[in-house]
Amino acid sequence: MISVVIVGTGNVAQNLYYALQQTDGVNIKQVVGRNSTHLEFVKDKLLVNTDFTNIPNADIYLLAISDDAIGTVTSFFKDKNGLVAHTSGATSIAVLNGVKRPGIFYPLQTFTKGKIVSFTSIPICIEANTKTDMELLTDLGKTLSNTVVEINSQQRKTLHVAAVFVNNFTNYLYTLGAEICEEHQIDFNLLKPLITETATKLNDLSPLQAQTGPAKRGDQKTLHNHLQLLKNKQQRELYTLLSNAIKEKHGKEL
Amino acid sequence: MISVVIVGTGNVAQNLYYALQQTDGVNIKQVVGRNSTHLEFVKDKLLVNTDFTNIPNADIYLLAISDDAIGTVTSFFKDKNGLVAHTSGATSIAVLNGVKRPGIFYPLQTFTKGKIVSFTSIPICIEANTKTDMELLTDLGKTLSNTVVEINSQQRKTLHVAAVFVNNFTNYLYTLGAEICEEHQIDFNLLKPLITETATKLNDLSPLQAQTGPAKRGDQKTLHNHLQLLKNKQQRELYTLLSNAIKEKHGKEL
Repeated sequence: MISVVIVGTGNVAQNLYYALQQTDGVNIKQVVGRNSTHLEFVKDKLLVNTDFTNIPNADIYLLAISDDAIGTVTSFFKDKNGLVAHTSGATSIAVLNGVKRPGIFYPLQTFTKGKIVSFTSIPICIEANTKTDMELLTDLGKTLSNTVVEINSQQRKTLHVAAVFVNNFTNYLYTLGAEICEEHQIDFNLLKPLITETATKLNDLSPLQAQTGPAKRGDQKTLHNHLQLLKNKQQRELYTLLSNAIKEKHGKEL
Repeated sequence: MISVVIVGTGNVAQNLYYALQQTDGVNIKQVVGRNSTHLEFVKDKLLVNTDFTNIPNADIYLLAISDDAIGTVTSFFKDKNGLVAHTSGATSIAVLNGVKRPGIFYPLQTFTKGKIVSFTSIPICIEANTKTDMELLTDLGKTLSNTVVEINSQQRKTLHVAAVFVNNFTNYLYTLGAEICEEHQIDFNLLKPLITETATKLNDLSPLQAQTGPAKRGDQKTLHNHLQLLKNKQQRELYTLLSNAIKEKHGKEL
């Protein structure tokens, strides 16, 4: 049984709490946050703690807090004998230098307010300074997910940038799609099967193989018509930049 | 029983052929294309025809050909009494002016070489000039899909632009994600659960609600670090443009 203290009240902390409390091999000893109203998601009120100076001993402390807060919060854990791991994709393990056993427990997924996700297929990216600590993080990861991988801080940062492209930026393209539909009284739901298939076909094809569309075909007439249809400057700018990038990548003359 | 002639040999023609041949209510009378080697996907060789001047009568002729070819190919159908429908998202119904009964049968999906898709959830966008023809296209659509919608040429063009954003451009962002992973010896497969979840969460949230990430949070430090990590000019340009767009949309100070 691995004992865990979760620190944080945001989407990652909440999802970790929901997932870990259902896990046989894990005992959540406490969920710690500054603001008790932000801790209302913790059903067992005995686990709630707002006092950072009074945190019980545990095998692992999971700091599921904002990147900027990690450095400050770390000071409360400098005397702890347990492993102190943060869950950030963008932050080096070096920020935890003040603690005895630093580590990373980064679930590579998007956590959105009000949506509980299943961890089974989420890759957990771990990092630690010793073999023992790596094993402990692996054990914790395996209670949640089928995929636990060792990724060093530099690789994790890169993975995080790539994640921004395929997740945050992709979602913004969905936003623009919805906006264009709304401007012309078209139901955005019509695009959802297309969105699903675009993601799903990566199971069979690389994204390079999966590319389709007017830019890929070098179909100037359609590209021109589309630009005429787009009245919003930002939509036009993105349309041009992305179409040119696709043309270039797929060897069409510019 | 609706009799259908499919014209074309590309991804849309092939997928329509595979789907319609499995449909009880439809009788495929012929598949027509210029090049017999491109017609090898047609299992029943009796259905293959490369002679456009010798096409049998049918209830519906589906022109699943490139946008540029529709105008030219239309001339072979000007004396036909059946309904002549093209399958293009970007092309007006006006291109079919030479035929007696023009129509549109546009399956809103991405069709990629070597991948057969199920039509059940694909919206079929139809257009025709008479109620009778609209009903015929609806009947054909319903043999394949649960969603058949009447969309006029102007709306269809807009839907097609929106589709380019959520499909072609999104797939290009996946390509960049894969490229960034490859450059740093990271397995792109790690990002696939994230890609799936980004698409799936639109079932619960609007893309505006679903937005996460450093740009949404106005997290300048991470944005700056990411830009430092990206060495490719095009990646940096897209990163900046999309991040600024997200910041603007979500009301963060630029």
